[in-house]
Amino acid sequence: MKKGLLIVLSGPSGAGKGTICQNLCRQLMGIYYSISVTTRPPRRGEKDGVNYYFITEREFEDLKEQGGLLEWARVYGNYYGTPRYKVEQRRSEGCDVILEIDIEGAKQVRERCEDAVFLFLLPPSMKELRTRIEGRGTERPDIIKERFSTAYRELEEIRHYDYMVINDDIQEAVDIIKAVIAAEKCRVSRNEEILNRLLEEGGIR
Amino acid sequence: MKKGLLIVLSGPSGAGKGTICQNLCRQLMGIYYSISVTTRPPRRGEKDGVNYYFITEREFEDLKEQGGLLEWARVYGNYYGTPRYKVEQRRSEGCDVILEIDIEGAKQVRERCEDAVFLFLLPPSMKELRTRIEGRGTERPDIIKERFSTAYRELEEIRHYDYMVINDDIQEAVDIIKAVIAAEKCRVSRNEEILNRLLEEGGIR
Repeated sequence: MKKGLLIVLSGPSGAGKGTICQNLCRQLMGIYYSISVTTRPPRRGEKDGVNYYFITEREFEDLKEQGGLLEWARVYGNYYGTPRYKVEQRRSEGCDVILEIDIEGAKQVRERCEDAVFLFLLPPSMKELRTRIEGRGTERPDIIKERFSTAYRELEEIRHYDYMVINDDIQEAVDIIKAVIAAEKCRVSRNEEILNRLLEEGGIR
Repeated sequence: MKKGLLIVLSGPSGAGKGTICQNLCRQLMGIYYSISVTTRPPRRGEKDGVNYYFITEREFEDLKEQGGLLEWARVYGNYYGTPRYKVEQRRSEGCDVILEIDIEGAKQVRERCEDAVFLFLLPPSMKELRTRIEGRGTERPDIIKERFSTAYRELEEIRHYDYMVINDDIQEAVDIIKAVIAAEKCRVSRNEEILNRLLEEGGIR
């Protein structure tokens, strides 16, 4: 069984990561959206086990100490993390896994999973980003301001990512991510087995 | 104007490089198939300026000495080369360029064009490759035999390529190459300009 891809998607608040992931998972068979654990309270409409696993700080600490987190971060005073077990299980079943995580989390995954693919989702312009964040209307003005300055700062981090995808049109952005997944599956470095089979057939091994 | 991609496609005789390139160019707008120069005589049905530019050894030597070849190789006693000027002109116009060249030629391109993308086209099995080469029926038995041993030897070279594409179904192989092209266009390293524009908008630069 060929191991599934690990796809990391980062990008500023308002870039549209959530919508893109939802559409991607609806359209692609065999991709698993990793549900994070978090200590932040649910926003209106968010459900436990669907958007996040909502847990206490104590539960988060325990999980972290047991080595159960592939990455974790503190963002705006709350803790977020990716449960390691589920990700590894799905990948070993040949399923691709997508993580929607921030740049700090992505750094940790970069250190731990050399074969992961890193995508950064961008708004078409910074002006558009401002409109999107303000339009969400669920945050206090000081949080909105902090999100902006974070977004600006994080742009510099894109250089550590493999691909950048501009979310101007949702379906176009989803199609690009599909193309990246299809292309990455054909990387020579991910297909040693096929190569060895052909070499054996060719009588070299 | 963003520079077009340079795509290098190699693979053993019988892998189906020609058919794949034809289909790709028919289906994708804005891709230019680089026509090689060669000193070998035309096969039945081949046309000058369509399949190759058929030139004399003297003409080939002149072109090479003037630095007019992006790569060149001697294969089965004949010379083949890629005219440099046309490739660079098309790329600077934003057009993607595909080169269908052997592994020796690919090595030279790898040294000269760091931003090129290298694809290796494979048959589904070595048995299938044998059937395809024999089925072509245009070559002498000793040439067929040489093509086989070359194919086996060349498999080891795949490790220097970025992607491997298995040509089991033509349309599937073409779709994979399209995905590779779409993905490569989104590489962070190819999009410095967009990144700088966003950073300027964000007030960082």
